[in-house]
Amino acid sequence: MRVFNFAAGPAMLPLEVLEQVRAELTGWAGTGGSVMEASHRSPAFVAMAEAAESDLRDLLGIPGNYRVLFMQGGARAQFAAVPLNLAGADAPVDYLNTGAWSKLALEEAQRYCRVNIAADEHASGYCTVPEPHTLALSAAAAYLHYTPNETIGGVEFPFIPESAGVPLVADMTSTLLSRPLEVARYALIYAGAQKNIGPAGLTVVIVRDELLGRARPGTPTVWNYAAVAAQGSMANTPPTFAWYVAGLVFKWLKSEGGLAAIGQRNRAKAELLYGVIERSGFYHNRVARQCRSWMNVPFALANRALDESFLSGAHAAGLTNLAGHRLVGGMRASLYNAMPLAGVAALTDFMQEFERRYG
Amino acid sequence: MRVFNFAAGPAMLPLEVLEQVRAELTGWAGTGGSVMEASHRSPAFVAMAEAAESDLRDLLGIPGNYRVLFMQGGARAQFAAVPLNLAGADAPVDYLNTGAWSKLALEEAQRYCRVNIAADEHASGYCTVPEPHTLALSAAAAYLHYTPNETIGGVEFPFIPESAGVPLVADMTSTLLSRPLEVARYALIYAGAQKNIGPAGLTVVIVRDELLGRARPGTPTVWNYAAVAAQGSMANTPPTFAWYVAGLVFKWLKSEGGLAAIGQRNRAKAELLYGVIERSGFYHNRVARQCRSWMNVPFALANRALDESFLSGAHAAGLTNLAGHRLVGGMRASLYNAMPLAGVAALTDFMQEFERRYG
Repeated sequence: MRVFNFAAGPAMLPLEVLEQVRAELTGWAGTGGSVMEASHRSPAFVAMAEAAESDLRDLLGIPGNYRVLFMQGGARAQFAAVPLNLAGADAPVDYLNTGAWSKLALEEAQRYCRVNIAADEHASGYCTVPEPHTLALSAAAAYLHYTPNETIGGVEFPFIPESAGVPLVADMTSTLLSRPLEVARYALIYAGAQKNIGPAGLTVVIVRDELLGRARPGTPTVWNYAAVAAQGSMANTPPTFAWYVAGLVFKWLKSEGGLAAIGQRNRAKAELLYGVIERSGFYHNRVARQCRSWMNVPFALANRALDESFLSGAHAAGLTNLAGHRLVGGMRASLYNAMPLAGVAALTDFMQEFERRYG
Repeated sequence: MRVFNFAAGPAMLPLEVLEQVRAELTGWAGTGGSVMEASHRSPAFVAMAEAAESDLRDLLGIPGNYRVLFMQGGARAQFAAVPLNLAGADAPVDYLNTGAWSKLALEEAQRYCRVNIAADEHASGYCTVPEPHTLALSAAAAYLHYTPNETIGGVEFPFIPESAGVPLVADMTSTLLSRPLEVARYALIYAGAQKNIGPAGLTVVIVRDELLGRARPGTPTVWNYAAVAAQGSMANTPPTFAWYVAGLVFKWLKSEGGLAAIGQRNRAKAELLYGVIERSGFYHNRVARQCRSWMNVPFALANRALDESFLSGAHAAGLTNLAGHRLVGGMRASLYNAMPLAGVAALTDFMQEFERRYG
């Protein structure tokens, strides 16, 4: 039985994508072998890779003056690659600290740069985002970095921060492709694949042309955006299989109606789950209402002694990976694109039944 | 039709492995989903990951004082990670230059260290390896780096260099697991997966305990061996699918009799192909006899005008990806573990028939 998997990532993939992967697993694109066996320089692979980029550009409406890079190492690698590529050793950089991932990003940047924390929600327990007008931006920052969606805290910016002309950099690992996006507002967007893009091991970087070529001398060549861009993300062997699956996911997104349709579906999924939590005294979510994530919904049972029963009952009902992150406990339901509305409905049905029984 | 794919990497995988991947693609290990959808922290994935490491340790006889790391970024990432982890900014490091990959490795190291080229085969056209007693080692090098098998040149060391107590580091991307190995002779071994291990996007690092904890301050956290080791290679989300396929490849290697049996098979494959080349005036290989690679066999046709006919005829016969690297031209047959002897026999049959027709 196929479960509804609420994991925060690696996460569910569309069943149609998995079935296509299976169908062509040993014989792909007329090559007489698996896509895993195809050279990244073979015509079949290059054509697939170009189509994947083109589909991603279509989906997000990526302007022509942006490059799309297919890299390795996840967001954590970008935590170092961003300062190495964009900031000299003396330049200040601005970071908004709104949760566990923001904090890891700025701590890694501190190893390379003078980091100014332009807003810090730590004291609030990471339950909200800063008001737009309160950001304490540096005078001459190399960039402003923020995390539009915090996977662990379930906190999401309802607005794009105004960076006053400074390049805006966003870790969109857990939100990219969940709805339409104004790419032109950003200088650089990066995302680990394992949420809405594809299998773990692939990282997508979308970067405005003019930011290429600023890398400091110690930047590892495989992380130098200009070098990666110059070679079409094939300066070294790319993660070919993950790239291929991402390409199938992009095609699936287009077939589902693109990001406008996906965004409506994701909004409906989130509203269904938050609604059930809100109308209950049994479950609660501590994130400020205006910045609750569509993608990651943490919630707690009023009676924590019931956590284990909840998780085991949910698992038996085919609703898996609902335990909250080990840093925060409780529950978390991640509702990425591949989670159907039916999955969220099954979860809310289970939650209401559980509440009737134990509430 | 499944072809015999002679690509240098990504390369053939065992058909049994691909068939198992296909069989469990949408339902893996009782999780109700694909392995691509499994959290790297789930019990099923952790058990698989541990079994993969254990099987690799069995295959190579890795001593207990070595750590096995599953990383991202390929050998090119290690070209930077090795000096960052093992050498202070002032320490000299020794490199042997025996081909295109050695050269890239030492050029990346030059960005971080004082590199002493302890042997240089460039002048010979990269057709041989240095004599053991000729290495011009530094007095106090942080390590000695070499490339036991050059994928492009087809040059392989028939001996392990004597490093006089200095930690010996080897890029074994295209030779690891091709035969038994004395791991204890090395301080650090690294290998991109896409030859004998699994899909591209995974890098295996085998490192002696005592070398952990020496990373210089600017080392990116995801590349810090000590940090990666401390978290069981899950400091950040690992390339889960590639790790899983690698685990299946390790089980396949064990079922085939382990590295002694694989080594005999690889020797037989190489001898068959080199024998046909040697006995012909039509084909030739320019690498010195004592250091010809078992894994990568470059060869040229005496009459280069026939190259295209050769390649298209081979392709029609189900023998693919025989074009040499774009740096050197000609032909190259890579004979990694998953290439059966029957594939090499089909190639040599084709070569002899082609020679009869055009020779």
